[in-house]
Amino acid sequence: MNAEILCVGTELLLGDVVNTNAAEVAKELAALGINVYHHEVVGDNPKRLKESLELSFKRADLVILTGGLGPTYDDLTKETVAAYFGKELVMDEEYLKLLKGFFEKSKRKMTDNNIKQAMMPEDCLVLENPMGTAPGCILEKDGKIAIMMPGPPREMLPMLQGPVREFLKSKSDCILTSRVLNVYGIGESSIEAELKDIMVNYKNPTLAPYAKTGECQLRITARAKTEEEGMRLIEPVKKEILQRFPNGEIYGENYESLFEAIVDCLCENNHTLACAESLTGGLISSRIVDYPGASKVLMGSAVVYSNEAKNKLLGVSEDTLKKFGAVSKECAAEMAENARKIMGADIGLSTTGIAGPSGATDKKPVGLVYIAVSTEKGTAVEQLHLARGRKDDREMIRNASCCKGAFMVLKASKQLKSF
Amino acid sequence: MNAEILCVGTELLLGDVVNTNAAEVAKELAALGINVYHHEVVGDNPKRLKESLELSFKRADLVILTGGLGPTYDDLTKETVAAYFGKELVMDEEYLKLLKGFFEKSKRKMTDNNIKQAMMPEDCLVLENPMGTAPGCILEKDGKIAIMMPGPPREMLPMLQGPVREFLKSKSDCILTSRVLNVYGIGESSIEAELKDIMVNYKNPTLAPYAKTGECQLRITARAKTEEEGMRLIEPVKKEILQRFPNGEIYGENYESLFEAIVDCLCENNHTLACAESLTGGLISSRIVDYPGASKVLMGSAVVYSNEAKNKLLGVSEDTLKKFGAVSKECAAEMAENARKIMGADIGLSTTGIAGPSGATDKKPVGLVYIAVSTEKGTAVEQLHLARGRKDDREMIRNASCCKGAFMVLKASKQLKSF
Repeated sequence: MNAEILCVGTELLLGDVVNTNAAEVAKELAALGINVYHHEVVGDNPKRLKESLELSFKRADLVILTGGLGPTYDDLTKETVAAYFGKELVMDEEYLKLLKGFFEKSKRKMTDNNIKQAMMPEDCLVLENPMGTAPGCILEKDGKIAIMMPGPPREMLPMLQGPVREFLKSKSDCILTSRVLNVYGIGESSIEAELKDIMVNYKNPTLAPYAKTGECQLRITARAKTEEEGMRLIEPVKKEILQRFPNGEIYGENYESLFEAIVDCLCENNHTLACAESLTGGLISSRIVDYPGASKVLMGSAVVYSNEAKNKLLGVSEDTLKKFGAVSKECAAEMAENARKIMGADIGLSTTGIAGPSGATDKKPVGLVYIAVSTEKGTAVEQLHLARGRKDDREMIRNASCCKGAFMVLKASKQLKSF
Repeated sequence: MNAEILCVGTELLLGDVVNTNAAEVAKELAALGINVYHHEVVGDNPKRLKESLELSFKRADLVILTGGLGPTYDDLTKETVAAYFGKELVMDEEYLKLLKGFFEKSKRKMTDNNIKQAMMPEDCLVLENPMGTAPGCILEKDGKIAIMMPGPPREMLPMLQGPVREFLKSKSDCILTSRVLNVYGIGESSIEAELKDIMVNYKNPTLAPYAKTGECQLRITARAKTEEEGMRLIEPVKKEILQRFPNGEIYGENYESLFEAIVDCLCENNHTLACAESLTGGLISSRIVDYPGASKVLMGSAVVYSNEAKNKLLGVSEDTLKKFGAVSKECAAEMAENARKIMGADIGLSTTGIAGPSGATDKKPVGLVYIAVSTEKGTAVEQLHLARGRKDDREMIRNASCCKGAFMVLKASKQLKSF
């Protein structure tokens, strides 16, 4: 079954509101194994809505609409869709009573235009709206299905994930199962060069790469009758990919990011982490804290943005700062070790470098970064050159430093565990 | 001139990514006075892209596309649009040289598929992409215009707000001038209630509110023959709005955020800042460090996520932690004061609270947050209740705490200056 998503609302056309509904409906349909090849947005205009609906039903059997169900004069979805199906709107007396009661209870005046909301296409399946006053509905005729839901996301979502999901499950015999492989250290185009045969040739499961900030995800998606069957299709593809990237580039499965992996892995290995951040400015700790469970793992981070703070908060010696400077492997090592010892953690991570655009010297260019990881077994420092001569270098250098540091911490925790 | 927005990308169709590009492009076109009646999303499929493009050009003269410009085999926007205009793709040798230079500089291997990005439709206007490797382009023929931009929002936005805006302005005989008023502490619907008369009735200049993370922007846009004329239209509207919000809610003009305001204002007042962050986890310092110039203002931040770190890194007394707990006004005050003194700053800011979902006690619920600001004149602590009982509370509570803290710092710097 093919579907299209048609969102109605002038506020969407003008960009006053971001169209999150389309993404939510799309995710739901994808999970149900229903193909979607088009999304449209039209304004509160009956002529254009009619034309879009007719076009959508030429291309697909299922059209999911959001918006245009309210009480105002420009809410015209039900009328337009009913007309396409050759149906009239009729008063749903039971719902009208409910609606009147609703207004009485909240002591609000029920204006005439609200009565519109109780007019429903004849023969439709009414969908209750516990979050608002406009019910949704489903019309079905001659193999074509239209599902109409309210525009406001907080009303649409429960309806979508409740009665609409149940209705669609009853229409489909397949489900989609996905697994994500998390990749660090190789770019999207190199990944594609290595996996192109799988990406192009495999129809079930499919393989798709997604670029994230400083890392990549490889999503393997299978269509089958059950989740178990789906997993059986996915396993061999996963094995094949792991064989092609044997050097630790695939750091995990189904993580949102390196930082979720840190919270998960360090918790599992019973390790704690203390950070000392200069150029990253708190970005590492704040990305770890995004995940509930961070408190089991993160002691804290000394964001020592100034040299004074490196010395006064973290105890980096004035000698080191004078002799080698803040951007040096010596300073990075001292920062990581001191953070670890002061906060009593198993692993210390530090970053120091030049994010730009200013701050470079003749010997130390923008993009020069030192990252150190310290454990009781010793301290490792890596030197990076991250500049690309581009306008967004500052942000990119900071992000890349965070990801590199996170990856080094994952490795350190693994090594520490194996001792 | 009528326009349509056509976003290309299977990740959009599947709902893996929310289509923020459509809203951004739509806002830009609305500000330029260009009517938009349709948005579409299609996947990385040449046949469907071609059909959508042909349909869009039947209905409109200008089509703005995002996505499908990258190096992988399924990036097909340029080819498809060029074919519609009867143009071939040709190698842009200059750009190819530039692209090779990028890869060499960052010591990454340039795979063959990257070369695709230097193939451009003949006779097109190339749009530089300082944030990525795929340039955009504009094709114009027989009254039809196609503008192609990259899919990733951080690449698309500067191109849209830079050369694309310039190009579209040149098609019109008016220019648009804007000023932004930065607002903190009032919600978008309250702002609308107060300013509805201006928003609905004024056609030139127009007034539009934009919700940002934890704050708002009011954009006043005037259309006129010159920028000076535009400013003359804007001034009275600005004055009117300032009169309606006389209590400091409007903290600045033309800032990207409260954090840019901090870097600017504290620099101007010659004040330095030290932070002590618990629940915000480094988010405050990392948002300040987003702005070049942060090093003039931010000494550092002690991200003391665990109680141990509060005591060992920042010297918060075990007594305070035992008697009042980490989430208390006493702890917040001590954190702010200690950070300020240890790092030798003029202003100390601290945050401590419960972001959730876990961590609440019977006396201390999720969303309870204390924020303290310390100067040599004294310490002020505010208690907040930020929970909304919603799924995104953790992220929202952290963000709201950052913004409140930033706003308090701006006030403190202003007060300190006036002593």
